[in-house]
Amino acid sequence: MASTVSIIGCGLIGRAWTIVFARAGLDVRVWDADPATTEHAMATLHTTCVEAGEDPSILARVTVVQDMQSALEGSDWVQENGPERIEIKRQLYADLDRLAAPETILASSSSALVASQFAEGLAGRHRILVAHPVNPPHVIPVVELCPSPDTAPHVMDNAEALMRDVGQVPVRLSREIDGFVLNRLQAVLLAESLSLVAQGIVSPEGLDDTICHGLGRRWTLLGPLATINLNAPRGIVDYLDRYGPTMARLSNSAARGDAFTRKAGEIAAAALPGSDQVASLSRSRDRKLAALDNFLKSLKEEK
Amino acid sequence: MASTVSIIGCGLIGRAWTIVFARAGLDVRVWDADPATTEHAMATLHTTCVEAGEDPSILARVTVVQDMQSALEGSDWVQENGPERIEIKRQLYADLDRLAAPETILASSSSALVASQFAEGLAGRHRILVAHPVNPPHVIPVVELCPSPDTAPHVMDNAEALMRDVGQVPVRLSREIDGFVLNRLQAVLLAESLSLVAQGIVSPEGLDDTICHGLGRRWTLLGPLATINLNAPRGIVDYLDRYGPTMARLSNSAARGDAFTRKAGEIAAAALPGSDQVASLSRSRDRKLAALDNFLKSLKEEK
Repeated sequence: MASTVSIIGCGLIGRAWTIVFARAGLDVRVWDADPATTEHAMATLHTTCVEAGEDPSILARVTVVQDMQSALEGSDWVQENGPERIEIKRQLYADLDRLAAPETILASSSSALVASQFAEGLAGRHRILVAHPVNPPHVIPVVELCPSPDTAPHVMDNAEALMRDVGQVPVRLSREIDGFVLNRLQAVLLAESLSLVAQGIVSPEGLDDTICHGLGRRWTLLGPLATINLNAPRGIVDYLDRYGPTMARLSNSAARGDAFTRKAGEIAAAALPGSDQVASLSRSRDRKLAALDNFLKSLKEEK
Repeated sequence: MASTVSIIGCGLIGRAWTIVFARAGLDVRVWDADPATTEHAMATLHTTCVEAGEDPSILARVTVVQDMQSALEGSDWVQENGPERIEIKRQLYADLDRLAAPETILASSSSALVASQFAEGLAGRHRILVAHPVNPPHVIPVVELCPSPDTAPHVMDNAEALMRDVGQVPVRLSREIDGFVLNRLQAVLLAESLSLVAQGIVSPEGLDDTICHGLGRRWTLLGPLATINLNAPRGIVDYLDRYGPTMARLSNSAARGDAFTRKAGEIAAAALPGSDQVASLSRSRDRKLAALDNFLKSLKEEK
């Protein structure tokens, strides 16, 4: 198992990753390109820990450093959390590939760019992949691992093993695809949600209730495929035989990209908490996510 | 509040509804068109109660009767759970409308048919609606309330009030739409899920993990709109300004109805528990859903 990891970029995601690795017992070296962020990194990490109900003593394993080179010292794994802009990522990976030891794996938290867009042409492109977390990874465990065509299989194996070792749930993609898996699923659900609200079929609260007091609960326990595997007497193939044509018809009449309108957003915004509450509600959400994670772990132990 | 309800059709859904109403303190009159189902109704209700961790003493409020007329005696609300076949539903509603007292509300658990398909032309069409639960409603609280063009607004108001009174979460639709809200959302997510698995982008387990250890957790706490309202500093409109174009692009490239193939089902089936385990896993799922419901209620009380 890796013993030292580097966090490159210490915003929201970088801090959450720092907690993931530090609480798993790894040494973490943290650096941000912005000197002000680096200066306050230890204090903000402390706050993030406390808010998440994590013991801040795990931060004894964290060293905040002043330059990229020092951040890479002795590192087995780099988790990069820079801005999602292609020209910045290209420069960043050129630097990382030049400065990191040859065996160090370079993983990007990118949600929008695929690795081939910033790894192409680099000597170490075989050791570069995307490890896309859900925000924030210290309370939501899934991590999408997506190779470029150049990423070596043993790098993917090591990435998967490391993520399991630190308590995350790695999901391995076989090849690059726009949006990876998670945001593709989110996009289709959001398109239909926004469309139903914009059409006035259901209120924004009703739409959210349908998921959070309905489908979301099944999906949290089982995932969508395991869910329908139990919704017909002979499993998922039986389900598709019985209900596939209906579900196909509903899909064919569903909304597409043109549902992402400002008007739909404004209808939803009028029913949702205002932007002045985003920060406090995010903290509350993270506390609840941590409690949900503990609850789901206790359920698993029971079975 | 209603004091007596009738359960017409006592299969899986009818039994679950019986528990919902009986544990809320209502008198429940149960009848099934199949004499064998009626004969064993009390025993199967007992089993369903025990499996769900409900005190079987609530069944003291339940009376199983031998004919439809007796089931409707003194009833404020009829919850109908017959087969989803239009000719059966039409006959059933003609009978219910003829036999039930004029003020009794007639609600169908239908997931596939809309009320206008079986209420049209009936004298009491103003008192007929769909109250579509998620299976099984005694452990998943959401209920979609969908009027036909003839359903009276006060009937919808009473339906909403009753569902809240018995501890369910009613979601009111403004008008009929194919699949209502819940199955439209499920359909788009399933189409993209099956497509990603059939393309070999991700394994069935990986697909399920992405939701149940990722997005599903957020959606269980907040719903999809409240989720994105916290994913940009100034809320949902800000989110759509920043990420709308990306999400629109992902939606436009998403799978549609042709993703519901037997091949996709077979790939998933090979990775999922076999059909011999459907019954026992369903019972385990229901126990976990009941525990999750309690957990989520405890979270709400905290805040």
